[in-house]
Amino acid sequence: MNRFSNEEIATVYKVIAERRDIRHFIPEPIEPELLSRLLNAAHLAPSVGFMQPWRFIRICDQSLRTKIYRMVEQERINTAHALHQREDEFMRLKVEGVRECGELLVVALMDQREKHVFGRRTLPEMDLASVACAIQNIWLAARAEGIGMGWVSLFDPDQLRFALNMPADAKPVALLCLGHVEAFYQKPMLELEGWAARQKLQDVVYENTWLNNAKINRESE
Amino acid sequence: MNRFSNEEIATVYKVIAERRDIRHFIPEPIEPELLSRLLNAAHLAPSVGFMQPWRFIRICDQSLRTKIYRMVEQERINTAHALHQREDEFMRLKVEGVRECGELLVVALMDQREKHVFGRRTLPEMDLASVACAIQNIWLAARAEGIGMGWVSLFDPDQLRFALNMPADAKPVALLCLGHVEAFYQKPMLELEGWAARQKLQDVVYENTWLNNAKINRESE
Repeated sequence: MNRFSNEEIATVYKVIAERRDIRHFIPEPIEPELLSRLLNAAHLAPSVGFMQPWRFIRICDQSLRTKIYRMVEQERINTAHALHQREDEFMRLKVEGVRECGELLVVALMDQREKHVFGRRTLPEMDLASVACAIQNIWLAARAEGIGMGWVSLFDPDQLRFALNMPADAKPVALLCLGHVEAFYQKPMLELEGWAARQKLQDVVYENTWLNNAKINRESE
Repeated sequence: MNRFSNEEIATVYKVIAERRDIRHFIPEPIEPELLSRLLNAAHLAPSVGFMQPWRFIRICDQSLRTKIYRMVEQERINTAHALHQREDEFMRLKVEGVRECGELLVVALMDQREKHVFGRRTLPEMDLASVACAIQNIWLAARAEGIGMGWVSLFDPDQLRFALNMPADAKPVALLCLGHVEAFYQKPMLELEGWAARQKLQDVVYENTWLNNAKINRESE
């Protein structure tokens, strides 16, 4: 039948609930077979018009990792300035784990995407949506394997593109820090740190028209 | 410990592998509790700076659904024209299930996103990436529950925004068709129909620099 067993369904909801965006790692490598499983899970993601626009670049070179760390650090400072009143609060957060994580991946949109019109004529950004689905697959698979992951977007995409010799029409969209962790946060780190609060589900679900709140079963609130 | 059991890990990889983008539905409603579970799974997705930029609009009104169907049909024709040599081939594909699916959801980026700078100063499109992660959560949870889902992006976002009374700075990015299915496709429908082929994993994974193919463990090819 189409439906998974009750135990399997519970596992899928469990991994979704326990996945965290991680910035604290134990500096220990990830086994090659485990990394292959994660990349394979990414590659099984849906993509608009089956275009498979994702490209993954493993950063194995230590000097390249240091270079990327410096880019992130610069953008962290630029972001802090842009946040005005929340600058100090932001600077106290740990927002990346680029140096400590066991494995650093750059995820990029492929080049020559303009050839792909299916599902993208009015919404060309669907390529990024597909890449994000692939990254979410890695995130969930990694959580089940006991591996933490953080998606860092604190970088200048042109600078990173240049450092990795990417063509002008490709674009890096994620730095994925993957690694072993002491523990997974009990809640999202930015919630624990008081940066932002979880919205109520009922406030983000509408019916037929904008801001017309739908009735949502209480079980899920 | 951090790691799930072997059975649980296998289930996570299974749901990732068996998820499909579905366009063939049995016209039968989805139980409200099940829909709540799916929306709750979406709301547990990661988001840049914990901004939770996703908004879900249930389309319950039949005349509104018909209106949306007409928008999709118009864009299907526009896309076919834009595909030139592949126009006829595209027109033969079933690319949406808007009228038959048990539940139709519009997913949108919220308004007033410019306030959110964390992780978005250089990459403002990270809001869409977060929404896509939420949609992938629905996709996977639905698959486990035996429910099919299709992400349709064949529409003019301004037209749909207007039909749902969305403010100018919000943006619809997905029509999600959810419903019971006869069966899940064995492979992606566009692969079965010969629209595109699955790329080899090794061709999308590089090391340190663009196009420098990484050695990937054969297990996952």
